[in-house]
Parts: sequence; structure tokens; C-alpha cells
Amino acid sequence: MQEKTKTENGILLIDDEKLQQGSNVRPKGSEIKAGALALERNSFLSPAAIGFLAAIGNASVMVYPNPIISIIITGNELQQPGKPLQHAQVYESNSFALKAVLTQIYISGVEVYYASDNPEIVTGAIEKALNQSDVVLVTGGISVGDYDFVLQAVSKCGIEKLFHNVKQRPGKPLFFGKKNKKLVFGLPGNPSSVLTCFYQYVIPALEKLSHKNPLLSKIKAPLSKPFQKTSVLTHFLKGIYDGHTLTPLEAQESYRLSSFANANCLIQIDEEITLCKDGEFVTGYLLPS
Amino acid sequence: MQEKTKTENGILLIDDEKLQQGSNVRPKGSEIKAGALALERNSFLSPAAIGFLAAIGNASVMVYPNPIISIIITGNELQQPGKPLQHAQVYESNSFALKAVLTQIYISGVEVYYASDNPEIVTGAIEKALNQSDVVLVTGGISVGDYDFVLQAVSKCGIEKLFHNVKQRPGKPLFFGKKNKKLVFGLPGNPSSVLTCFYQYVIPALEKLSHKNPLLSKIKAPLSKPFQKTSVLTHFLKGIYDGHTLTPLEAQESYRLSSFANANCLIQIDEEITLCKDGEFVTGYLLPS
Repeated sequence: MQEKTKTENGILLIDDEKLQQGSNVRPKGSEIKAGALALERNSFLSPAAIGFLAAIGNASVMVYPNPIISIIITGNELQQPGKPLQHAQVYESNSFALKAVLTQIYISGVEVYYASDNPEIVTGAIEKALNQSDVVLVTGGISVGDYDFVLQAVSKCGIEKLFHNVKQRPGKPLFFGKKNKKLVFGLPGNPSSVLTCFYQYVIPALEKLSHKNPLLSKIKAPLSKPFQKTSVLTHFLKGIYDGHTLTPLEAQESYRLSSFANANCLIQIDEEITLCKDGEFVTGYLLPS
Repeated sequence: MQEKTKTENGILLIDDEKLQQGSNVRPKGSEIKAGALALERNSFLSPAAIGFLAAIGNASVMVYPNPIISIIITGNELQQPGKPLQHAQVYESNSFALKAVLTQIYISGVEVYYASDNPEIVTGAIEKALNQSDVVLVTGGISVGDYDFVLQAVSKCGIEKLFHNVKQRPGKPLFFGKKNKKLVFGLPGNPSSVLTCFYQYVIPALEKLSHKNPLLSKIKAPLSKPFQKTSVLTHFLKGIYDGHTLTPLEAQESYRLSSFANANCLIQIDEEITLCKDGEFVTGYLLPS
């Protein structure tokens, strides 16, 4: 460092043409004027927003509470991880995956109920869950099989059906209903369907309830290889986004999670599309890490 | 639903050409073969990965612990939010912003120390923080002013300097050093510089330590309007990504957080670039919500 000054006749002269009076001085009110709006109502309190509010002197602000959520896991075929698997059983994984995503949106203390495939038990579980939560998530039992009792249970609980079945894969049997201000999602039982529906429907609803920003960033990027489908359903593919292109992974079946475990995005292939060419731009939803 | 069957001579015939033997049946081992590798070592345990591990029967897995982090806030000019501001004081906001980002990567219980601008006090604080943490973050005091004591303090503490000063704005005075396996970041004092350096340097280091996936998604997208700069520094601009284009916000000064509070991304304008045209592709880092 060199002092850019000289002394002439006892007067200190600053010898720096770039230096202007007022530079490196922060005028009062240059961050925000007194009385001005600091942040719009319902703004997301990002770390920078929290810093900003502190920087202008706020020690506390009003926020929306997180919704209280209950999860009901239905299915006689389910076994807890760590225990030996009997004939025709599968391990219960949906509660763990759902609680993990809820943690990512800062919702903890979620109650999990297990209900066997019996209409009274499912109804009772939904009633109990409705009483103590703002949002009820049911997994399984929402399709049209002999052991699918969720539809009749939600009806018995006085839940108004808003929709059932969506033109998408995975997650076609999705149910959504309301009772007063309480929301009920009937998610399919297959783990990949559950998680896809959770990301695409439940998370946006929770974000609306607590005025949060989207957890999943929506992007447009080219497919790295062609993708073909025959169904007239919107597909959500487990994929990898490498910063440039979107690549669908293997193992897209709705009962499988192996590719979802390695995916960092969901790739949306629209309903009417049968062939998506290499290089074609599609929508991707980046999963948070 | 319609049963696609007919009975002929007492034999039930299935009348559905699309139905093939084995469809809707999941063969044993179709998710994963016994003995096969389920997830690569150091995989990120996303909600889907947690679900996948549960689905194949795991009740517990080994994970890396989170690093223990201490924050040292230096600066005589700092006042706590909520208290009246005296002449030449500014509110301390860095600890709040940093703790908020750390929460986003699931690190809580962070110790915050306040050190006045005195070489012994700063040295003492760094020594204490080094003893009880894996990563020490110091804010302020890292530049070349008369009250900047962090450089001499880290040296006294036996911390090896790996670099000091980076060709970027904001965050030019950034310091990084190590003592044994412990990392020390000397972040500038200006809130916007602190947060930018935290996102661009500290977070990647923490992710490396605990084998996490990047918190910030890196994307390429076109600028929505031209951007000009005269400095030969890499600029990180507070910006908005709308799913298509990247738009720099106003208030890019390093002491200001008002635009950072509304930003959902950082836009990188490389060192050597002086004019970035409307529509030109640049790198963006999406901030998590």
C-alpha cells in the first residue's frame, strides 16, 4: 500500500484522481429510507432476508406457522425395515421418505399412524388424524382393488372430494379432498408414486399454506437422449441434471426407488408427447439437496 | 370397470390382448439383486435414498457427522438489532444470516462469539473457537484498515494461510486458512460479501467435509438484460431466475442486503467480461428456499 498524498506548503493534498468526495462513505438511509417498505408481506425469509431485517434493526418478525401434518400408512403387506420379510410382504418406506422431505421444508414432529386394510380402521385413523392436524397424508388404498378402502373412508369422514385420478405416471390414483380448511391427500402406495405426488402436489400446497417459496426449482433444459412413451399421460421421470442437460435414469417403475435415490431432478414429459428428441427442451424440477 | 373375461366350457378365459403373463407381478429381486450395491459410498441421503434404503430393509445406515462450526463476529461498530443505533454504528446481521444458511444444511447449535477490534481479543476468540470446532468463520477485520486484526490473529494462532484476497466482487478480502484439519474462513464484514463468500466458498467446503450434494444448483441461462462492468473481477450479482432468464437486481453494493433479500439466485459474470449482452448465457447459482 502506498499513501497517495503529498504535502505542499504545509497542506496535505490527496493525489488520487479516482477518489471522489463521498466514495467509501455510506449516506444515511442509503440501504433503505425511513418509513419505506422493507419486504413485501408474505416474502420468503431467506438467509439474506433474515440478515436484511436484522441489518435494519429488527429483532423479531411475524411469520406464518408451519402446518401440522399427519401421515397414515395403509397396507397389510407392509413390514418395518430391519425385521425379517414374510411371504408377500414389502418393507414400509413411505413414512421415512415423507418425513425426510418434510424435514427439508422445516416441518418436524410429524405423527405417523399405521392402518391395516380394514374400512373401520382406515376411517378411524383418518378421523383421528383430521382432528389433530391441518394436512393429512394417506398412503396406499386409493386405487380400485378389493383392499382399497381409503375412498370410502374419506367419504365417511365428511371429506369433500376435489379430485381423484390424474393423467400422469407415476401417481395416477392420486386423491385430493378438503374438510373445512383441512387438506387430505390420498397418495398411491407405490414409493415412487408417493414421492412424485408429494413433490408435485403436496409440497406446493404446503408452500401455499405457509407462503413459502418453491422447494423445487423449475428449469427448462434439453434432454440428453431421446425419450419415447406410448401412454397419453404426463410422465415424471427420475433424472439427472448436470447443469446443462436432463437425463432420464433407468428403473422408472412406480414401485422402485433405486433410480429415485440417485436422481437430482424430475423430468416432465407432457401428456400429448410420444417422442421427445435428443436436444429438445423439457421442464425439469430440481430436487433439493 | 369391466371384467375382460369369458367362460367357455367351464374354463375362464381372459379376453385382454394387452395382458401378458407376469405383468403386475413384481419378480423377487426386481428392485435390487441380493448382494448388489444399493448406493455408492458417500451418496447423498435424499428423501428418495432414505426411502430406498428403508424399502430394501435397512433400519439404520452410517452417515458422516456434521462439522461443528463457530462464528466470530468482529467490529466495534456493531449493535444488536432491537437496540437503538448510536452514531457510526450499524446493526449486526451476519450472525443471523449465517445461522439461517447453516440451518438450511441442517447444521444447528452454532456458537457465536463477539470480538471487539483488539488484536488480543480477536486472537483469544479464534483460539477458543478453534479448540471447540471443526470450522471457524470470522466476519470482518480481514481487510487492510487500521482496525483489521484478523490476519495477525490467525497467524498468531498458528493457522496456515492458504489464500487471502480473491478477484471477485463482492468478497475481495476473503481469507482461507487451515490448522491441522480445522478450517478457518476470514469473511469480509459487509453483509452481502459475507453471504456471497459463504455460498461460494464455505458451503462447498462444508459439503466436501460431510460428503453432501451442492445446496446451490448451478445453471446456465440467458441474461434478460445487458450487464456492464469495468472491474477485472468476477462479479456475483444478486438476481432473479424466473425459470427462463436471469435478471440482476438493483442494490448490488456489498454493504446492502435489500436486493439479496429478494434474490433467488447469484449470477456469475466472469472476471474478463466487461459487457454481457441481453440473451447471452451466463452461470447462475439457485439459492435454496
